[in-house]
Amino acid sequence: MNLSDTPHRRYNPLTDEWVLVSPHRTARPWQGQVEKVIPDQRPAFDAACYLCPGVTRANGEINPAYTSTFVFPNDFAALLPDSPSATLADGLFQAHSERGICRVICFSPRHDLTLAEMEIPDIRLVVDLWASQFSELAAIDWIKHVEIFENRGAAMGASNPHPHGQIWANESIPTIVASEQRSQKAYFAQHQRPLLLDYVEQEVARNERVVYANEHWAAVVPFWAVWPYETMLLPRRAVSTLAELSEAERDSLADLLSHTLIRYDNLFQTSFPYTFGWHNAPCDGADYAHHVVHAHIYPPLLRSATVRKFMVGYEMLAQAQRDLTAETAAQRLRDLPSLHWTKAE
Amino acid sequence: MNLSDTPHRRYNPLTDEWVLVSPHRTARPWQGQVEKVIPDQRPAFDAACYLCPGVTRANGEINPAYTSTFVFPNDFAALLPDSPSATLADGLFQAHSERGICRVICFSPRHDLTLAEMEIPDIRLVVDLWASQFSELAAIDWIKHVEIFENRGAAMGASNPHPHGQIWANESIPTIVASEQRSQKAYFAQHQRPLLLDYVEQEVARNERVVYANEHWAAVVPFWAVWPYETMLLPRRAVSTLAELSEAERDSLADLLSHTLIRYDNLFQTSFPYTFGWHNAPCDGADYAHHVVHAHIYPPLLRSATVRKFMVGYEMLAQAQRDLTAETAAQRLRDLPSLHWTKAE
Ligand SMILES: O=P(O)(O)O[C@H]1O[C@H](CO)[C@@H](O)[C@H](O)[C@H]1O
Ligand SMILES: O=P(O)(O)O[C@H]1O[C@H](CO)[C@@H](O)[C@H](O)[C@H]1O
Repeated sequence: MNLSDTPHRRYNPLTDEWVLVSPHRTARPWQGQVEKVIPDQRPAFDAACYLCPGVTRANGEINPAYTSTFVFPNDFAALLPDSPSATLADGLFQAHSERGICRVICFSPRHDLTLAEMEIPDIRLVVDLWASQFSELAAIDWIKHVEIFENRGAAMGASNPHPHGQIWANESIPTIVASEQRSQKAYFAQHQRPLLLDYVEQEVARNERVVYANEHWAAVVPFWAVWPYETMLLPRRAVSTLAELSEAERDSLADLLSHTLIRYDNLFQTSFPYTFGWHNAPCDGADYAHHVVHAHIYPPLLRSATVRKFMVGYEMLAQAQRDLTAETAAQRLRDLPSLHWTKAE
Repeated sequence: MNLSDTPHRRYNPLTDEWVLVSPHRTARPWQGQVEKVIPDQRPAFDAACYLCPGVTRANGEINPAYTSTFVFPNDFAALLPDSPSATLADGLFQAHSERGICRVICFSPRHDLTLAEMEIPDIRLVVDLWASQFSELAAIDWIKHVEIFENRGAAMGASNPHPHGQIWANESIPTIVASEQRSQKAYFAQHQRPLLLDYVEQEVARNERVVYANEHWAAVVPFWAVWPYETMLLPRRAVSTLAELSEAERDSLADLLSHTLIRYDNLFQTSFPYTFGWHNAPCDGADYAHHVVHAHIYPPLLRSATVRKFMVGYEMLAQAQRDLTAETAAQRLRDLPSLHWTKAE
């Protein structure tokens, strides 16, 4: 089947959804909204930034003079640990109270950096923080899922440019996580192998959608990618949470993150906006041999630093749609240098 | 259960998904991206607009001097009617060719209007066009689903402000439509009543989330709404496609559309952006007694004409989240006047 110029749909075996691909449509002119490019000349320290070291936050607390990473409770948490338990079960009207813990994680004291601009040893400290935060929250008996993520850039709803992410830990398993679990469980029951381990091995062997790979990890534009330059970060062995990674695997992950995020920035010579997040195994005590820990990166930009893909209309009502194929996207990213464009001579 | 100030999750019986509601969080300050407010002073005719009457389009065709509505094939169609049939079935790599028809539908010759600003008799002509387009496309033997939608405003990816919508008709049933079908079928099997007929009757009786209702239709902020001011437009009898609506029901729908869309514009005194679209029954010849035709309106604005809700991070990786409750949103919309703010003295 010719995937490079016939309209087709591809199956996402992880979520049991389809994406419509219209490769013939990449030449469509764009007359719609253009994003602002915010000139990225930030100071290394900004006294008005509530994430910088030594600054007083909204609630009166003072950030420590931290020198690597820093975690604190989200001052405007969407979830609270002490909500009273309650249920509404009235036919079509079903609701449950939901407890949770929301934290903010600063990746660096430097206000002017991004993960893409940080050195690999400093990214490694972020990997360690993700892993230790996961372990700490997963150990709380009523927490069933820990979502660790980063919204990078104003176009992706980030309200502060300081390099940081968030953690939302829940007492129930969220909808998207539950659907990935269903598929992975069914695949494991049938093949006695984790779906994502088979998947990463096949992608590495085909080498068509791999953006970058090292000994322990691969960054792949998934066959079923929805966003133009969407990628998944996959370990090359069956490991279900970040906490189980070896020292060498953590170093490899820091290397992979750097090589992948630099390519994003280099693509349109901009600080590429994205949502980035981890799917660790849920922490409800069940068996997760079918689950492979992985990250999804969902970046909105399509053609330039200012023209994004809009997931609206058909996409919100019927199914996801893309023009550029996953193979073309992977090749463009793969062919870019691993040196950040602002550092190149 | 107290839904107005405890964090909780609500179940969407139509898609089998949950939404997290954080009502305590509505006071959160916003320092992120603000949308551009485009001063809406457009001429009634714009020779540079490819949707205006008499204008020459990209492909050299000349639009007729139309006086009410106008339909033409999308010059940059995502789907083509003549794609060759092909299948890829290779383990985790599954794809099918997909045929389809994409059309553009102009709601009015007037470049300067929106559905919210049009008179009810003119909106009625749009209702008739939706119904006749549905019938025409559904009659094509290989078409299985007809998606009729509108992306309104630059914030929702509209590349042209001329009042218009689109139709994407497919040879397969799209993912989101399929999930609504599964739920409606299961409910019908259990209750011998359509899910959405039971739902609209209960919402009208409770009158807590109704924005506007008339003899044949109701506009409701669904109990499980994701977007801050999301609504559903529901007929008050079991009718599965727009084509089956009586004359009186079409008049009522035009009235409902006007009253609902004017309230959106009045909320923040702006031309409210949204994605709006219909879920008619699929047209594959199966029985759709379980299906009730309905529209979803997904508007992104949250607090003002410039501050929107971002569905990013936790929402993309775990599950949808909102701050404002559906009940508060419905009350705010309901309490607004039915006269468009630009026409009020
Ligand atoms: O066809 P348009 O209006 O140019 O494009 C818009 O609607 C389409 C259908 O919802 C989307 O795929 C595009 O991302 C959006 O920008
Ligand atoms: O918490 P923040 O960064 O202010 O908010 C951002 O991330 C949240 C979690 O993904 C989203 O719910 C918000 O819509 C988004 O603006």
